[in-house]
Amino acid sequence: MSSPLAHAPVYRETVLAPLFAVVTRHHWRHLLCVNRAHAVMLAERDLLTAADAAAILGAIDHLEAHLERTIDTLEYDSAHEDFFFYVESELRARTGADVAGRLHTGRSRNDVDQTILRMALRERLLALGADLAALVGTVVAVARRHRSSLVVAYTHGQPAQPTTWGHYLGAFAELLLRDADRLLHAFSTVDRSAMGAAAITTTGLPIDRVRMAELLGFASVQRNAYGCIAACDYATESYAALDLLLLNIGRFVQDLGQWASFEVGHLQVPESFVQRSSIMPQKRNPVPIEHLRLLCSVGSGHCRTVLLAMHNTPFTDVNDNEHTVHEVGYAAFDAAHRVLALLERFVGAVTIDDAAVRRHIADSCITMTEVADSLVRSEGISFAQAHAICSRLARTLADRGLPLTELSYAAFAAAFDEAVGRPPTVTDAELRRFATPEHFIAVRDRIGGPAPAALDTAFEEYERQLALVTAAFDAHRERLARAAATLTAAARQQRTRAGAG
Amino acid sequence: MSSPLAHAPVYRETVLAPLFAVVTRHHWRHLLCVNRAHAVMLAERDLLTAADAAAILGAIDHLEAHLERTIDTLEYDSAHEDFFFYVESELRARTGADVAGRLHTGRSRNDVDQTILRMALRERLLALGADLAALVGTVVAVARRHRSSLVVAYTHGQPAQPTTWGHYLGAFAELLLRDADRLLHAFSTVDRSAMGAAAITTTGLPIDRVRMAELLGFASVQRNAYGCIAACDYATESYAALDLLLLNIGRFVQDLGQWASFEVGHLQVPESFVQRSSIMPQKRNPVPIEHLRLLCSVGSGHCRTVLLAMHNTPFTDVNDNEHTVHEVGYAAFDAAHRVLALLERFVGAVTIDDAAVRRHIADSCITMTEVADSLVRSEGISFAQAHAICSRLARTLADRGLPLTELSYAAFAAAFDEAVGRPPTVTDAELRRFATPEHFIAVRDRIGGPAPAALDTAFEEYERQLALVTAAFDAHRERLARAAATLTAAARQQRTRAGAG
Amino acid sequence: MSSPLAHAPVYRETVLAPLFAVVTRHHWRHLLCVNRAHAVMLAERDLLTAADAAAILGAIDHLEAHLERTIDTLEYDSAHEDFFFYVESELRARTGADVAGRLHTGRSRNDVDQTILRMALRERLLALGADLAALVGTVVAVARRHRSSLVVAYTHGQPAQPTTWGHYLGAFAELLLRDADRLLHAFSTVDRSAMGAAAITTTGLPIDRVRMAELLGFASVQRNAYGCIAACDYATESYAALDLLLLNIGRFVQDLGQWASFEVGHLQVPESFVQRSSIMPQKRNPVPIEHLRLLCSVGSGHCRTVLLAMHNTPFTDVNDNEHTVHEVGYAAFDAAHRVLALLERFVGAVTIDDAAVRRHIADSCITMTEVADSLVRSEGISFAQAHAICSRLARTLADRGLPLTELSYAAFAAAFDEAVGRPPTVTDAELRRFATPEHFIAVRDRIGGPAPAALDTAFEEYERQLALVTAAFDAHRERLARAAATLTAAARQQRTRAGAG
Amino acid sequence: MSSPLAHAPVYRETVLAPLFAVVTRHHWRHLLCVNRAHAVMLAERDLLTAADAAAILGAIDHLEAHLERTIDTLEYDSAHEDFFFYVESELRARTGADVAGRLHTGRSRNDVDQTILRMALRERLLALGADLAALVGTVVAVARRHRSSLVVAYTHGQPAQPTTWGHYLGAFAELLLRDADRLLHAFSTVDRSAMGAAAITTTGLPIDRVRMAELLGFASVQRNAYGCIAACDYATESYAALDLLLLNIGRFVQDLGQWASFEVGHLQVPESFVQRSSIMPQKRNPVPIEHLRLLCSVGSGHCRTVLLAMHNTPFTDVNDNEHTVHEVGYAAFDAAHRVLALLERFVGAVTIDDAAVRRHIADSCITMTEVADSLVRSEGISFAQAHAICSRLARTLADRGLPLTELSYAAFAAAFDEAVGRPPTVTDAELRRFATPEHFIAVRDRIGGPAPAALDTAFEEYERQLALVTAAFDAHRERLARAAATLTAAARQQRTRAGAG
Repeated sequence: MSSPLAHAPVYRETVLAPLFAVVTRHHWRHLLCVNRAHAVMLAERDLLTAADAAAILGAIDHLEAHLERTIDTLEYDSAHEDFFFYVESELRARTGADVAGRLHTGRSRNDVDQTILRMALRERLLALGADLAALVGTVVAVARRHRSSLVVAYTHGQPAQPTTWGHYLGAFAELLLRDADRLLHAFSTVDRSAMGAAAITTTGLPIDRVRMAELLGFASVQRNAYGCIAACDYATESYAALDLLLLNIGRFVQDLGQWASFEVGHLQVPESFVQRSSIMPQKRNPVPIEHLRLLCSVGSGHCRTVLLAMHNTPFTDVNDNEHTVHEVGYAAFDAAHRVLALLERFVGAVTIDDAAVRRHIADSCITMTEVADSLVRSEGISFAQAHAICSRLARTLADRGLPLTELSYAAFAAAFDEAVGRPPTVTDAELRRFATPEHFIAVRDRIGGPAPAALDTAFEEYERQLALVTAAFDAHRERLARAAATLTAAARQQRTRAGAG
Repeated sequence: MSSPLAHAPVYRETVLAPLFAVVTRHHWRHLLCVNRAHAVMLAERDLLTAADAAAILGAIDHLEAHLERTIDTLEYDSAHEDFFFYVESELRARTGADVAGRLHTGRSRNDVDQTILRMALRERLLALGADLAALVGTVVAVARRHRSSLVVAYTHGQPAQPTTWGHYLGAFAELLLRDADRLLHAFSTVDRSAMGAAAITTTGLPIDRVRMAELLGFASVQRNAYGCIAACDYATESYAALDLLLLNIGRFVQDLGQWASFEVGHLQVPESFVQRSSIMPQKRNPVPIEHLRLLCSVGSGHCRTVLLAMHNTPFTDVNDNEHTVHEVGYAAFDAAHRVLALLERFVGAVTIDDAAVRRHIADSCITMTEVADSLVRSEGISFAQAHAICSRLARTLADRGLPLTELSYAAFAAAFDEAVGRPPTVTDAELRRFATPEHFIAVRDRIGGPAPAALDTAFEEYERQLALVTAAFDAHRERLARAAATLTAAARQQRTRAGAG
Repeated sequence: MSSPLAHAPVYRETVLAPLFAVVTRHHWRHLLCVNRAHAVMLAERDLLTAADAAAILGAIDHLEAHLERTIDTLEYDSAHEDFFFYVESELRARTGADVAGRLHTGRSRNDVDQTILRMALRERLLALGADLAALVGTVVAVARRHRSSLVVAYTHGQPAQPTTWGHYLGAFAELLLRDADRLLHAFSTVDRSAMGAAAITTTGLPIDRVRMAELLGFASVQRNAYGCIAACDYATESYAALDLLLLNIGRFVQDLGQWASFEVGHLQVPESFVQRSSIMPQKRNPVPIEHLRLLCSVGSGHCRTVLLAMHNTPFTDVNDNEHTVHEVGYAAFDAAHRVLALLERFVGAVTIDDAAVRRHIADSCITMTEVADSLVRSEGISFAQAHAICSRLARTLADRGLPLTELSYAAFAAAFDEAVGRPPTVTDAELRRFATPEHFIAVRDRIGGPAPAALDTAFEEYERQLALVTAAFDAHRERLARAAATLTAAARQQRTRAGAG
Repeated sequence: MSSPLAHAPVYRETVLAPLFAVVTRHHWRHLLCVNRAHAVMLAERDLLTAADAAAILGAIDHLEAHLERTIDTLEYDSAHEDFFFYVESELRARTGADVAGRLHTGRSRNDVDQTILRMALRERLLALGADLAALVGTVVAVARRHRSSLVVAYTHGQPAQPTTWGHYLGAFAELLLRDADRLLHAFSTVDRSAMGAAAITTTGLPIDRVRMAELLGFASVQRNAYGCIAACDYATESYAALDLLLLNIGRFVQDLGQWASFEVGHLQVPESFVQRSSIMPQKRNPVPIEHLRLLCSVGSGHCRTVLLAMHNTPFTDVNDNEHTVHEVGYAAFDAAHRVLALLERFVGAVTIDDAAVRRHIADSCITMTEVADSLVRSEGISFAQAHAICSRLARTLADRGLPLTELSYAAFAAAFDEAVGRPPTVTDAELRRFATPEHFIAVRDRIGGPAPAALDTAFEEYERQLALVTAAFDAHRERLARAAATLTAAARQQRTRAGAG
C-alpha cells in the first residue's frame, strides 16, 4: 500500500480516522486473535520458522497487553493507513520488519477482514441468544404461573374472547422460540471461516484452512474462496433474523400498550415502570412500553440499513461490507439487548387486574358464543336454534345496557321456547355457568387451546424447545471457549518449541 | 356479520370490492379446499351427519366447477360482504341454509384465512424452489464446463487476480444453495396448519386439528391458537428469505453488467439477449442485465412492504396480515420468478472472451504477486527479496506501458542480482510460466481455490447439496400431492357413506 | 434496434411482454400525445414538410381511435420489441416507412420515455391533490361543526387533557396542508419537459424545446440534457412526499382505532362502516380503520420500492427508472386514493360520544391541573400552594375511586386552609366550574389553543390555505387542459396547412 | 413525576441512562437556551417577577458555564429521572425550589422537547446547506474549467455519445440545486416554534408564543398546539429530503466508479485518493469512491430508520419522536457531511484522461449518428439515405475491428453513391470533421446541450441559483445569530431591571 502520509487530509478526516475508530471500538481483539492463530498455523505448516513464530507471538502478546490499557485513547495519527497497518508496524517495531512481514504469508486483508467481521457477529448472536433465552424462560414461567389468569383476547381492536394470560404468553413464547431458531440458523451461516481465501482465490502456499477454522472456533471452512470474500449473506441473514425478532416483539408491545391504557386497564404496571404526576394521580404513563416500541423500530431500522448498504453493490470485495456498516448493525444488537433485558423484567413485573378483565368480559358479552355452543351440546338443539336464542338474548342485554352477568333466566326460557318449541332443560345455574369465562376456557382443550391440560402440554413443549435452544447456543459458546484455549496452548507450544530449538 | 347492503358505498369501492378481487385472483381454490377438508373432518368426528357432509361436499364440487369457468369475470356485487360469504351463500343455495351453516362448526374466518394464506405461500415457495434449483443446476453445469475459462477477479472495481469462470460461478452456486436452505427453513415455518384455532382460542367442540393438517398437506399443526391467528412470522420469514435471495442475485448481476461493458468486454452476451443499433454496431446494450437488477430491486421492495405492513400492528388478528398485503408479496414472487428464469437462460447463453480477458490480465500485471511467490519457492529467497525484485519489474513495465507478457529476462536477472546478490536459477521459460494465469490458478489448490482438483471437489459438493435441496422441495411437493389425493378420497368416501346410509 | 424476432423466448416472456403490458395499461395515450406534439413542433420548425406532418398526424389520430377500442386486448406479439416500435410500425403502415421514420427526427427513446413518465406522474399528483383537498375540506368543515365537542387528548397512551374534536381535527388539517404543500413542490419538480434532450445530449437539429414543453403542458424545460435522462428526482421526490402523507395519515388512523375501541368508545362509528356479529352485539369491528392503516403501509411500501430501485444505479439512462418501477409507484397512488376517499367519508360520518368522553375526563381527573392554575389566578396564591392543594385533593379522590366531579368542597377548604393558612374565597360553584372541561378549554385561548376564538382564527387560516392549495392544483390542471387544446389546434392547423399546400 | 429512585434498575440501565447520554451529547445547550428565553418571556409578560427572572437567568448562566467544563463526563446518576429534571434540580439548588419551579409556568416537557428537537435539526440543516453549497460551487467551477474536456456519456452501461465533463457535471449541479431547494423547504417546515403548546393544548396563562419564537430564532409559531406536540413531519420531511440527496449522490458515485475502473480509465484519481500496491502498480484502488457509496447508503438507511420509528405510532406525544430516534437521524447528517466534504475535494482533484476518452470514442463509433445527421444537412439527402450509408460504413469498420477515425473515404464514397445515386460533395476532411467528437458537441447547442454557448448560459443559471440558495441559508443563519443576540440582550435587561428594582 502507498504511504498513508500521501492521503488527502479530507480523506483522512472523513474516512480513515472514523474507520480507525470503528476498529478500535469493536475489532482490535479479533485482529490480534487472527494474527495469533495465523502465526501458529504457519509455524505448524513450516511456513514460518519456530523462531519467527515465537517472535511474532511474543510481540502480539505484548501489543495486546499494551492495547488493553490504551485502546480507549488510541487515536488515528495518519502514520498508518489503518488499524491493520498500525498493528503491522507495532509488530515490526518489536520483531524487525522481515519477521513481521512473514506473518502476512498466505493471507490478505480480505480474508482477515471477513473473518474478523464473522467473529464479531458470532459473539453478538450468542449474547443475543442468551438474552432471548432468558426472556423466553421468564415468559414461560409467568405463563405457567398465570395459566388461569383471565385476560381478554382482542381481534380488530375489540374484545373477542376470554382467554388466559398464560395462553396469551404461550403464543408469544412459541413465536420467540421460532425467532431463536432463526437466529441459530443465521449463526450457522456466520460460523464458517474465511481464512485462507487470501485476496480472493486462496494461495499457492500449503496453508491449512481447516486448522485456522479450528483455532478460531469456527464450525467449518467456508469453501469457495471468491465467495468467502464476496458473499455477505452471513451478515444479511443475521440482520434479517434480528429484524424479524424485533418486528415480532414490537407487535407484542403494542398489545401491552393497549392493555395498560387507562380505559382498558387489564395490565397493571408497577410503580417502578411508570412515570406519573402528583396532580393527576390516575395518569400513570407506562413509558417503558413506548421505549420498547421505539427501540424495536430503531433496531429494525439499523438491520435494514445493513441490507441497504449491500444493495446493488458488486459481488466481490467491497468496502460496502466492512467495518463501518457492521457498526451500524451492532447498534441493532445494542437496541435488541435493551429491548430483551427490559421486556424480560417488565413481563415478570406486571400483573393482571382481574376485576377489570371480568367487567369488560361481562360488558362485551364475549362469552355468548360459548353459551350457544353449550346449549347445542346440552339441549341437543341445532346451531341455528342456539344462535337464534342467544342473538335475541344478546340484543335484549345490549338494548338495556346490561352485562352478560345480568342475564335473565326468564328471558332465556322465553327465547328458548320460541326457538325450539319447548322449555329448556338447563337450569339457571347451568346457564350462568355457560356464560362464565371459566367455562369458556375449560371446554377449549384442543391442541393449542387455553384449557389447563392443553396449556400444560404446551408449556412442557416450550420448555423442551427452550432447553434445546439453550443447549445449542451453549454448545457454540463452549466451542468458542475451547478454541480460545486451544489457540493459547498452541501459541505457547510454538513459543516453547522456539525456546527449545 | 351485518348485511353488506348497509355498507357505505365508499367502503365497498375502496375496500370490499378490491379485497374480493384479490381473493378471486389468488385464493378461491384454497377456500374451497379448506371447506372440503373441514366437511370431511367434521363428518369423521361425527360433528356433521353423513347426509349433511355429502350435501356440502357435493355443493362444493359444483361450485368449484362453476367457478373454474366464471372466476375471471366474477365481480363484487355487494350482495355479500366478501368472497367468504359469497361462497357460503352459494352453498346455502345448493344445500339449504341450515346445512351450509353447519360447515362453520368449530371454525372461524380467522383460522380459515390464516390457513389459506399459508397454503398460497407454500405453493409459491415450492415454485420458487424449483426455479432456484434449476438456476443452481445450470450455474454448476456451466461452471463445470468452464472450470478452466479464465476470468478476472475484481476487488474495489479493479482487476485483482485471475481466476476461472468455473470458480467464480462456484461462489455464486454456493451462495444460492444457502439461499435455498433459507427458503426451506421458511417453508417449514409456513408449513403448519392454523385450522382449529377458530377465532383465537380453539373451540369447545371435539374437532381434530391433526386430521385437518393432514388433509391440507401441512407437516404439522401450529400449536398455540392465539399464535395461529396473531403470529405473522410465517410470512415475514418467507419474505425476508426472498429479499436476501434477490439481494444476492442483484450483486451478481452488477458484476455481469461490469463484465459486459464495452471496455471490459469479458462477458459476451449473445444477440438474443442484446438490443443494438444498426448505426453504432459496437453499441450492444445488454439490457436484460438492467432488467434483472431492476426486478431484483422491485421484488426486494415488495418483500419489505410486507414487513412494513406488519410493523407496529397489534399482536392479534388484524387485517394488516390479510389478503391485500399478501398480494403485494406475491408480486415479489412474480419478480423472483422472472429473475430466476431469465438468469438461468442468460448464464447458460453467455460466453467468455478469452482474448479480452488475457489482454487485461497481462495489462494489469495481476499475476506478478504469484511470480514473487514462485520465486520464493524455486529460488529459496525471502518474500522481502522476491517482493523487491517484482516491484522493480512491475514499475519498469508500468513506466513503459508494457503488459506483463513483455517482461524482459535481462531486466529480471539484473533486479534479481541486485536484490539477492547472485544470478537467478530460473530460466526465461520458467519465469514466463510463473507469470501466466494458468500457473497462478494451478498452484491455488487449497480448499475452495480455482485449481482443477479443488474445483472438482467443490462441484461434487454443490451437486450433492443441490440434490438434497431438490429432494427436500420434492418431498414437500409430493406431500401436498398426496394430501390432495387423500382429501379427494376422503370426500368421496363421505359421499359414498351418505349414499349408503 | 435489432429484430425482436431474434430475442430469446425467455427474454420475451420475462421482460418484453410484461413491459408491453405496463405501457398498454398506463402510457399509450401519453406516447401518442408526445408523437403528436413532436410532429407539430417539427413542422413548425420546418424539420418536417407540411405533407409529412399531416400524414403523420392523421395516422396518429387513426391509431388513437383504433387503440381506444382495442388497447385492453392488445397483446405483445413479439413482432416488435416494444410498444414504441409497435406504434412506429403502425404509423409506417399508414404513412409509408420513410414518412413515419421522420417523426423520430431530433429525439430518442430516452427523452420520450422520461417525458411520458413525467406526464403520467403529473396526472396522478393532480388527482391526489384533488383527493387531498377534499379530505382537508371535510376535516376543516367537521372541525368547525365540532369546535366545542369535547374529546380527550392522550399522551403516552393515557388521558392527558380535555380538548375539542375541532381542535384535534385542526391539528390534522394543518398537517395535511403541509403535505399538500410538499406535493405541490414535488409537482413543480415533475413539471419540466425532457423533450429535446434526445439520447442524452440534445441534437444538432434546430428543434424547439420550449415549444415542446408548451404543447405538452409543462411549466418549463428541464435544462441539462444529460440530467433530463439521468436524474430521477422528479420521481423520488414525488414518492417521498406521498410516503410522508401516508405516514402522517397512518398515525391519525392509529388514534381513530384507539378512540373507537370498546373500552374507550369516544368515537362512534356508524353502522355503514362497521362489521358486526349478531351474537355479540357489542362487538362492532370498525374494520375500515384497519384497512386505512394497512393501505397507508402498503402505499408507503410502494413508495420506498421506487426509491430502492434507484439506489446504487448509475447516474444515466437506466431501465431501473422506467415503466416497470413506475407502475409500482402508481400502486402507491391507488392505495393513497383509496385511503383519502375512504377517510374523507369516514371523518364525515363518525360522531363523538359526549357521555363517554365526559365520564373518562372526570374519572381521569385531567382537569385538575387547571383547577390549580385557576386557584393561582383567583386566590392570588403561589403555584406551589395551588399544586399542594390539588395534589392532596387528587389523592383523596384516587384513594376513594371517585371522579373529579365528586370533589368535596369541605375537603377542598380544609386542604386550602392547611396550605395557605386561610379559608378559600372561591365558592363551591366556582370550584366546580374550574374543574369542568369547558372551563379548561375556554381559558386556553392562546394562538393554536382550543378556545373558540383561537379556533375560529385557525379555521379561517386553514380555509385560506386550502383555497391557495386548491387554486394551485387547479391552475396546473387548467394549464394541462389549455395545452391539450393548443396541441389539438396546432395539429389541426398543420393538417389544414398541408391540405392547403 | 415520581421519584426516579423508584425506577426499576433495568429501566434505568436500558432507557434512562442512555437517554440522558443522548441529551448530554446533543441537546443540553438547547434546553438552557429554551429556559433562558422562557424566563425572559415570562418576565416580560409579568408572569415572573423581575427578581425571580434575574435569579433564574443567573442560575442558568452559572449552570451553562459549569456544564461547558463538565458535560463530557456528566453521567446519569439516577437521582433525577432525566436531564430535564437534572437541570431543574440544579436551578433549584441555586435559586431555591419555589423560584426554580416558577420557570415551568405555562409550559410542559412536551413543547420544550419538540422545540429543542427543532432547534437541533435546524442547525444540522444549516450546516448541511453550507456543505452542499460548497459542493455545488466546486462542481460548477470544475464544470466551467472543463467545459470542453471530452467524456463519454453512457447509457445502459455502454458508450452512447460524446459529451464534456462540464456538461456532465452541469447535470449533477442542476440536480444538487434541486436537492438544496428541497432542504430549504424542509428547513421552513422545521423553522416553527412549538413553545406555548404546553402539554398539548396551550395554557390559560397569558404567555406570548410569538415572542418565544422570536427569542429562539424561529421564523414563526407552529399554530395548532396539538399539532405542535403530535406532528413529526418537520423531522420526516427533513430526513426524506436528506435521503433523496444521498440517493442522488450515490448514483453519481456509481458513475465515478465505472469511469475510474482500470479498463475505462477516463477518470484519473490522484495518488492522494487511491490505495495502491507496490507489486501491482496498475492496481490503484480508488477506495474513496466505495466509501462515498457506502456512506450514502448508511446515511439513507438512518433517514429511513427515523421514518420507520414514526410508522404506525399514535398521532400525539410519543417517545417514538424524541431524543433517541433523533440521534439516529444525526448520524445521517454526519454521514452526509463526510460525503459532501470528501466529494467536494474529490471532484476538485480528479482529472480526465483525454487520450483514453478519445480512444474509446473512436473505438465505439459513437459519433456515427452525427455523421449521418451532418450528411443530411450538407448533402440534402434524406435521413433514410444517410442512415443507410452510415450503417454500411459502421459495419465495415466493425467487421475489420477499426475505430471510426480509420474511416475510408473511398468506402464512404462508394456507399454514398449506392444509396444516393451520385457521388458525395463533402470532402474527406469534412467527413472526418463530421466524425469528430468536437463537431458532435459543437452542433448540440440547444438549451441544455453541451455546446459552449449552451453551457455558458447554463453555468450562469447555476451560479445564479447557487447564489439564491446560499443567500437563503445565510439569511436563516443570520436570523439565528440575531435571535441569539436578542436573547442575550433581553436576558441582560431582565437582570438589570431586577438589580434596579
